[in-house]
Amino acid sequence: MAKRPVLTPQSEDFPRWYQDVINKAELADNGPVRGTMVIRPYGYGLWERMQSEMDDRIKACGAENAYFPLFIPESYLTKEAEHVEGFSPELAVVTHAGGKDLEERVVVRPTSETVIGEFMAKWTQSYRDLPLLLNQWANVVRWELRPRTFLRTTEFLWQEGHTAHATREDANVYARRILHEAYADFMVNVLAMPLHLGIKPSYDRFAGAINTMACEAMMRDGKALQMGTSHELGQNFANAFDITYQSVEGVQETVWTTSWGTSTRMIGGLIMCHGDDKGLRVPPALAHIQAAVLLIRDEDGAGEVASKLHDELVEAGVRSRLDAQVDTPFGRRATDWELKGVPVRVEIGPRDVAENKVTIVRRDTGEKQPVGIDIAAATIRGLMEEIQITLHDEALAFRDANTAEASTVAEALEAAKTGFATVPWSVVADAEKELAADAVTVRCIQRADGTVPDDEDEDDLVAICARAY
Amino acid sequence: MAKRPVLTPQSEDFPRWYQDVINKAELADNGPVRGTMVIRPYGYGLWERMQSEMDDRIKACGAENAYFPLFIPESYLTKEAEHVEGFSPELAVVTHAGGKDLEERVVVRPTSETVIGEFMAKWTQSYRDLPLLLNQWANVVRWELRPRTFLRTTEFLWQEGHTAHATREDANVYARRILHEAYADFMVNVLAMPLHLGIKPSYDRFAGAINTMACEAMMRDGKALQMGTSHELGQNFANAFDITYQSVEGVQETVWTTSWGTSTRMIGGLIMCHGDDKGLRVPPALAHIQAAVLLIRDEDGAGEVASKLHDELVEAGVRSRLDAQVDTPFGRRATDWELKGVPVRVEIGPRDVAENKVTIVRRDTGEKQPVGIDIAAATIRGLMEEIQITLHDEALAFRDANTAEASTVAEALEAAKTGFATVPWSVVADAEKELAADAVTVRCIQRADGTVPDDEDEDDLVAICARAY
Repeated sequence: MAKRPVLTPQSEDFPRWYQDVINKAELADNGPVRGTMVIRPYGYGLWERMQSEMDDRIKACGAENAYFPLFIPESYLTKEAEHVEGFSPELAVVTHAGGKDLEERVVVRPTSETVIGEFMAKWTQSYRDLPLLLNQWANVVRWELRPRTFLRTTEFLWQEGHTAHATREDANVYARRILHEAYADFMVNVLAMPLHLGIKPSYDRFAGAINTMACEAMMRDGKALQMGTSHELGQNFANAFDITYQSVEGVQETVWTTSWGTSTRMIGGLIMCHGDDKGLRVPPALAHIQAAVLLIRDEDGAGEVASKLHDELVEAGVRSRLDAQVDTPFGRRATDWELKGVPVRVEIGPRDVAENKVTIVRRDTGEKQPVGIDIAAATIRGLMEEIQITLHDEALAFRDANTAEASTVAEALEAAKTGFATVPWSVVADAEKELAADAVTVRCIQRADGTVPDDEDEDDLVAICARAY
Repeated sequence: MAKRPVLTPQSEDFPRWYQDVINKAELADNGPVRGTMVIRPYGYGLWERMQSEMDDRIKACGAENAYFPLFIPESYLTKEAEHVEGFSPELAVVTHAGGKDLEERVVVRPTSETVIGEFMAKWTQSYRDLPLLLNQWANVVRWELRPRTFLRTTEFLWQEGHTAHATREDANVYARRILHEAYADFMVNVLAMPLHLGIKPSYDRFAGAINTMACEAMMRDGKALQMGTSHELGQNFANAFDITYQSVEGVQETVWTTSWGTSTRMIGGLIMCHGDDKGLRVPPALAHIQAAVLLIRDEDGAGEVASKLHDELVEAGVRSRLDAQVDTPFGRRATDWELKGVPVRVEIGPRDVAENKVTIVRRDTGEKQPVGIDIAAATIRGLMEEIQITLHDEALAFRDANTAEASTVAEALEAAKTGFATVPWSVVADAEKELAADAVTVRCIQRADGTVPDDEDEDDLVAICARAY
């Protein structure tokens, strides 16, 4: 008789499967204030690894971290016209503090363009101060009417980069460098997620940007998720905040700025790109726990063997966790590690020890294999790269299988019911409303070879159309 | 003719010297909303290193990081009576969000005891779930009437640990473990700051605690700064939030909780413990830039030599920064690195290259020495440990020289005019108001041998009295 599954199957109800994974893998809980979330230790461990890998790449691109205040005077938001229009409906406002009503209301940052603009104006005096390359890891707040854990929450954690450059060309190059070297490199090589990179249609840019570039990934229900964006802000914020500098020739010039961000939303993308009916599947390059060493019963020396293998794994550079909680039933623990998507599970009990072996279970394929104790650590270490590749290739094959070429709006709408449509940009350029009526959007615009175009007016561009989170 | 100093001398006006260092070393700026701060890249670099070193130690104590929401329903705060009384005057309140007035007002967390209490109640079902050891890195808000950068700001960054235990004994041991193994170990060995550890008088505990332990350091004006605290919360929050578990015997029991925190205030402590009239002095173990390699003029191969030495230093594990900004005058750059307190400055110009040497300048002693290029990297690496020890020993000697034994309240008040007074606790136990009239407080209570007592009723305890930040 089949057991009732721990999770709602993906095919039955994908959104419910997603919420089940979040609960059962102990990734997050809903916070007490509408739309907020509590990120539990296992979920936060994923985020810490994302931060660390991203931070290395951002620093390699030359940016330095800084911290700007949570509270922004309401008047700042109104300085850039499109920006205030974009964010007004989502703002949380502090009106009362220190026991008194405030004279000027203060907004909780929805993003930091404005306050950073104010300080860039102070800090960029001379051409010597450029480029100014800043990044911030912080929480931001956007009041959500239809919250969804990790994907759309009232408060979320993110990094926001903000840079100022002497020329438009330099800003353009930098925004692209971040897109490729920080974002795509991390998402493809660490998260094992295949991406479409491209520009957003002009009607769908960030509030105040002259160009928005995005990383788009396919989830296992065929929908798209925007994993990160990099914006050229032109001189819009520079003019609004008077960010100028003295050039080599002694002339006062206005800077060009960029901003770029990724957030805890990536955790949602990770779940929905790799997860299966047994739970999350975490790529080894990301996993903060790469191998769980499970002691079945602490008898006949099994405890010592488990503990020794754990030490060997750590020694070999594998992020191992020893699970010797033998007063919790073994089956339940095995299911828990499966739910959590740890790449490799090692099972060790008295019978294994007697046979001088351990049992290795791969989370990606479900494959179980007995392995001699003496080669267990080396075998597991070798599996890390293999599982990483398998997960990436599986996601890529899934995306390919669920992508159709379309040559009309009608065909694009049909394809977007189950996956992505690639369609000539010229066909859908004026079809925003027609697509939207079916909840379909242009996720990004690419060149035919998949590279990122300079603008939407180039010839022979392709639009990736899909429903999206 | 003496040049006008870059900084106000410490002896002339210590608070102004402090503010000068913050500005000139580009550590922070005031934010636009009263009492908030912008942490600039150099200041944030110090904080990142503090985070990293602390995080390692906290994890070694078994705690895991998690993230709880910024927004807390106002009703939560009122559940623990002393807690709400302690924080009410400092709260920032969101009354309006998403374009509407809120039904229940929401406070911006001043600390997360209450919201974490709520979730601990969900997560601790069985004795198997204990101890529950959580830590959070986050921003918190306490509306400040007299803000001071890093020391008292309306928003600050911190870590707050929150743990739940089966017994009072276990909670007590863990709160002490954090105090010693995470906090004191970091502050003494990385920040090079000598500490007094002890308990707070009962009238000066954290709001809701049954015991507060603190790390107290002496600043160079003789005042004390509290660098971190670790609290036993008894069952106050557990009762208020109904945090119970089923024991091994199947009985429903109430947990014992602790909380502990350190913040960006430590940056203020670092400045005032080690800084001198030339600026900050950063201990090498902390410094994110341990050596600045200054190219004087890019002539006769000096550029290549500087760049090569920088690479060698990185190779040798020294956190080096190459400064080849030769279009900024050399003297100004040298002063800037001095202001920033980088432990070692290396000066390389065409004349040095001709003589096959470089000039090494120690920030702690100001000593300048020519060193052969071939042994430069090894010499600098060796200096790291030496400078670390020198800074610590200097701070300790300063503290000893400015600490007096007192046997009466009057003597304690006299000594506290310029430094610390050690006085029998029995002498000052009832003198809170008398001390306070002179702005003096009991910083902590210790045993005669400097260890941390169990409570203030032990015999022969000593009180450290001082004025404080």
